[in-house]
Amino acid sequence: MTLNIGVIGAGRIGKVHAENLATRVPGTAVGAIADVVLGSAQEVAARLHIPKVTADYREILRDPAIQAVAICSATDTHSQIIIEAAQAGKHIFCEKPIDFNLDRIDQALAAVEKAGVKLQIGFNRRFDANYARVRQAIASHEIGELHILHIISRDPGPPPVSYIKVSGGIFLDMSIHDFDMARFLTGSDAVEVYTVAGVKVDPAIGEAGDVDTAFVVMQFANGATVTIDNSRKAVYGYDQRVEAFGSAGAIATDNLYPNAAIISTAESIRRDLPLNFFMDRYTQSYEAEIRAFVEAVTQNKPIPVSGQDGRVPVVMGLAARKSHLEKRPVKLSEIG
Amino acid sequence: MTLNIGVIGAGRIGKVHAENLATRVPGTAVGAIADVVLGSAQEVAARLHIPKVTADYREILRDPAIQAVAICSATDTHSQIIIEAAQAGKHIFCEKPIDFNLDRIDQALAAVEKAGVKLQIGFNRRFDANYARVRQAIASHEIGELHILHIISRDPGPPPVSYIKVSGGIFLDMSIHDFDMARFLTGSDAVEVYTVAGVKVDPAIGEAGDVDTAFVVMQFANGATVTIDNSRKAVYGYDQRVEAFGSAGAIATDNLYPNAAIISTAESIRRDLPLNFFMDRYTQSYEAEIRAFVEAVTQNKPIPVSGQDGRVPVVMGLAARKSHLEKRPVKLSEIG
Amino acid sequence: MTLNIGVIGAGRIGKVHAENLATRVPGTAVGAIADVVLGSAQEVAARLHIPKVTADYREILRDPAIQAVAICSATDTHSQIIIEAAQAGKHIFCEKPIDFNLDRIDQALAAVEKAGVKLQIGFNRRFDANYARVRQAIASHEIGELHILHIISRDPGPPPVSYIKVSGGIFLDMSIHDFDMARFLTGSDAVEVYTVAGVKVDPAIGEAGDVDTAFVVMQFANGATVTIDNSRKAVYGYDQRVEAFGSAGAIATDNLYPNAAIISTAESIRRDLPLNFFMDRYTQSYEAEIRAFVEAVTQNKPIPVSGQDGRVPVVMGLAARKSHLEKRPVKLSEIG
Amino acid sequence: MTLNIGVIGAGRIGKVHAENLATRVPGTAVGAIADVVLGSAQEVAARLHIPKVTADYREILRDPAIQAVAICSATDTHSQIIIEAAQAGKHIFCEKPIDFNLDRIDQALAAVEKAGVKLQIGFNRRFDANYARVRQAIASHEIGELHILHIISRDPGPPPVSYIKVSGGIFLDMSIHDFDMARFLTGSDAVEVYTVAGVKVDPAIGEAGDVDTAFVVMQFANGATVTIDNSRKAVYGYDQRVEAFGSAGAIATDNLYPNAAIISTAESIRRDLPLNFFMDRYTQSYEAEIRAFVEAVTQNKPIPVSGQDGRVPVVMGLAARKSHLEKRPVKLSEIG
Repeated sequence: MTLNIGVIGAGRIGKVHAENLATRVPGTAVGAIADVVLGSAQEVAARLHIPKVTADYREILRDPAIQAVAICSATDTHSQIIIEAAQAGKHIFCEKPIDFNLDRIDQALAAVEKAGVKLQIGFNRRFDANYARVRQAIASHEIGELHILHIISRDPGPPPVSYIKVSGGIFLDMSIHDFDMARFLTGSDAVEVYTVAGVKVDPAIGEAGDVDTAFVVMQFANGATVTIDNSRKAVYGYDQRVEAFGSAGAIATDNLYPNAAIISTAESIRRDLPLNFFMDRYTQSYEAEIRAFVEAVTQNKPIPVSGQDGRVPVVMGLAARKSHLEKRPVKLSEIG
Repeated sequence: MTLNIGVIGAGRIGKVHAENLATRVPGTAVGAIADVVLGSAQEVAARLHIPKVTADYREILRDPAIQAVAICSATDTHSQIIIEAAQAGKHIFCEKPIDFNLDRIDQALAAVEKAGVKLQIGFNRRFDANYARVRQAIASHEIGELHILHIISRDPGPPPVSYIKVSGGIFLDMSIHDFDMARFLTGSDAVEVYTVAGVKVDPAIGEAGDVDTAFVVMQFANGATVTIDNSRKAVYGYDQRVEAFGSAGAIATDNLYPNAAIISTAESIRRDLPLNFFMDRYTQSYEAEIRAFVEAVTQNKPIPVSGQDGRVPVVMGLAARKSHLEKRPVKLSEIG
Repeated sequence: MTLNIGVIGAGRIGKVHAENLATRVPGTAVGAIADVVLGSAQEVAARLHIPKVTADYREILRDPAIQAVAICSATDTHSQIIIEAAQAGKHIFCEKPIDFNLDRIDQALAAVEKAGVKLQIGFNRRFDANYARVRQAIASHEIGELHILHIISRDPGPPPVSYIKVSGGIFLDMSIHDFDMARFLTGSDAVEVYTVAGVKVDPAIGEAGDVDTAFVVMQFANGATVTIDNSRKAVYGYDQRVEAFGSAGAIATDNLYPNAAIISTAESIRRDLPLNFFMDRYTQSYEAEIRAFVEAVTQNKPIPVSGQDGRVPVVMGLAARKSHLEKRPVKLSEIG
Repeated sequence: MTLNIGVIGAGRIGKVHAENLATRVPGTAVGAIADVVLGSAQEVAARLHIPKVTADYREILRDPAIQAVAICSATDTHSQIIIEAAQAGKHIFCEKPIDFNLDRIDQALAAVEKAGVKLQIGFNRRFDANYARVRQAIASHEIGELHILHIISRDPGPPPVSYIKVSGGIFLDMSIHDFDMARFLTGSDAVEVYTVAGVKVDPAIGEAGDVDTAFVVMQFANGATVTIDNSRKAVYGYDQRVEAFGSAGAIATDNLYPNAAIISTAESIRRDLPLNFFMDRYTQSYEAEIRAFVEAVTQNKPIPVSGQDGRVPVVMGLAARKSHLEKRPVKLSEIG
């Protein structure tokens, strides 16, 4: 069986998924692509020999030859398209976040459950070889019982302030990846969150009502402490590392680099900067996650990142924001 | 001029200072050594050709040929000996902590001030080449404005529970080094402290009323966030690292190792464990700190670690403990 | 323009080139595939939608719609197919080595020159990001004038002895990559070669008339010394590194690893073994080299690895073997 | 028993030994120091409380209270002083090389043997923790049977040409350390030597009749190949590393650094340059070697670096030079 997928949204991430599905993932084909900017969809379709192109995603949902959709449209359309796709009986891969609003998330998850379709959320970093190795070390007790997990996640530079304003704020836009990583790596859930945050990178971000530097410390149900260190700007590039410490040892990952060369001169012993762009850093994980989705549908395997996995990091983000605003530890049970 | 120093206390750390003063530090001599266990003092004196040995430190304080003392006795005697040494007009090098009680610290500092003698506190890690390099990077703005500093400080194994009971607790016994390091590296002071802590290593530590695993996040006056990650037991050995992140870059230190060899086998690419014992890890810093004290006295230079530098980490430790007990952020101004 | 390529040979490397051409390289299409084992060609064709399949490569050469061929057949067929492809007016990408026999190489190169077609040899490692970085450092004088270059090239394990017997020997089968690397990195040519070699890995290799461990030191025309350290078996995996030293510095590369995680336990500080298989280690370079070939043909750019680049390493291999057999330095001018 | 040692020569290395003996090595005392420049000896004596000072080393040899001597004088005096010291019944620690002339070495060794005194040669690098770890890995078969050993040994900068002229040439002045290291690490002896060398660093060195860049490849009796890469000038500092490869793995050492800090900026990920001066790099080994000498004498243990260990590297140096001059492999049996 070949899984016939429609891609909804032909922006940066839609292109990545379409290309992986069309050229690298066996057992699947891209049967259609939609974008409100029709030209974008047409460009991708021509390059990848996608037979059907449309400006209206509902055309894809109505197409009985399409069995699944990859939702790569703007965040504020995700929950609505999930509901419609579920009602149309399509399996769904949806980019994170599902939504910033818990009610709309719950409505979308209810529609998915009612329709009995599969839903995978696009937390691609779970499929990165480095994080997968850390998860393995923790799950297999290679480092014993987990005591503390540090997540460092810094962007090479902030997005435009215009984006910041509609981003949902750093906790829902940026930390959300790390909240998911915390759950994935620990195999547990946060109980309480404490946040210290501020504006260090650009005052304009503060004027837009957001912060650009945040530190979150969380207590997890399994007894582990988890910290997240976020910055919108690391001048040396995309800084994505974790370090886990347990009763029998520790495991730490490094960034990925364009090459492994060490250069020694009269000034220093140095190497080139790490991969700077998340599309380069996580190339392999984007392919792996969509491959896992195709396998989950075609071979009826469990979905590796569930709808609930999409909902909880939003709760954590809301709790982290509340802690920042109220300057006190906040229990997740306060959020809902 | 040769500075004639009396060493008070011939235990582990007293031996280190006596040996450094006698054999490695120019411009000084050890004129006397005292220990309530006279045999310990005699053993050191014989080996290092120290002319005067006594079980009573007051003999040293009475000796007009002695110009300075190194107080290496039990913690609960520090403040009293400081007061008496100051009254006797001796310059003072005192192991940390001065005391666990702020009143007694204040009395000791008042005595020092009144006598006009010099007092240096033994926060030796400030003299370690790694931390000194990080301080240089921060002070010189090599990494720009400091945003966040992470301090990792884990012991290879917990001390006996009998010691734990009289140690003052993890925050005053172990974290106190890291509180000093936070102040030294940032060049600033803590405003607020939040602590997450628990018993992970040994239930007996909990039964003794202490914790063995602690995480502290602090807001500093200069705007930086500082975190401390303490554990009484890292199975791979003494784990002492810091990582500082700023607007223009980052600096991170590694542990020290007995050798730099990398061994590749059919199982892994590995290296030997780091230096496991604080006396090996910080050998060089013990020599450097006592050398700095001798220079400060003989050349009338400023003392690099003042009495106030000895007092503030105790305040921080009390705040961290209060935060842990009350499960809320605590301002240092609440402590005094 | 889309370059229509026929792939000759559907074995391991033929599959890699076919897949890259079909799915990753823009401006090209695989129009036909041939293999003497027809089933192999059919399997690849089905998976990649290649329209024409044949057991006889001459069918491809006769097809006017095919503009170029990728020769991925057995080594002893390379020179003959090059000659026929050139006579048919096809541009040629040919796996290394062209041949073990200098006369047949010369005949092939003459045919290519006469036909005026482009010929690129498949020394893929030139396109690896690590080696490219070293080349850049040398070419740009980032490390000044090159004094010495060390090439380490060790396989994870020897091929079957049946293969060893027809391989041409370690110098033409394995070192040949490193001879090319030496020329690529130095931008110069060898003048004299001295070899020390023996059987260390498996006596059966010696009984087959070959060695499995070889060390070659060469003097290059530009004054640099170049060394090659070859072993058929490194138990820790595929070991491919270079280190260049010059008047203004040095540059050294490391192996590539499946992940960057460092694991600390009570035994050691370790990481997982490096990528073990050349197809994993050089994945990116296979794509880059065939992409370069397509661009060279379609955009009429210079071929990055010429026929002469394919010939010289064979001369070097013959010289290295002669030095080994005669236990003396051998000038390349002795070979021809 | 306290071993009473006389130090002959109060230059750079004499000072190091005198200081270690006087302050760090238990069971010994420096009873006298001699230097033809009396002021140098007096300065050291005053600082270290050495009771006897003289410009004539024969005074030390005549002193019945002196049981051993450390010969740290100019190289061309070593063999003569060894002979006289042996005749005077003193145990001898002698800086390398014993001499450049094999006859004089043999006369010195004969005198030592006749007198029945102990003689240790100052190949301090054997006592360095990194090389000791490599020796352990090879001796314990941690990396299986040794196939190849690479020694990299580069100085931060050349000595003055005036020194070059009397140095004995690079092979006897600089490589001699590496010849000893090759024997120490392999536990075997060289059979044949091939050298490639030239003038790369400074033409004045060539005009003085020497080379400044040399590469030596050797076949050892145990079947291992050993290479030495020497340069008089590495702009990034003192570069001293080895890499051993065997049937069960590999071991490689790195340089030593003043700190372990990694600095990330917008330009690169870098660390400070390695320790630049051999006295800093090998501080610990100087103490360890003289401690071993004292223990060998006072506890009647075997001498760790024998007179023969001092002779063989001179033979190797002469063979390497001959190979360079005659441009062919040279057997050690050709030298004597």
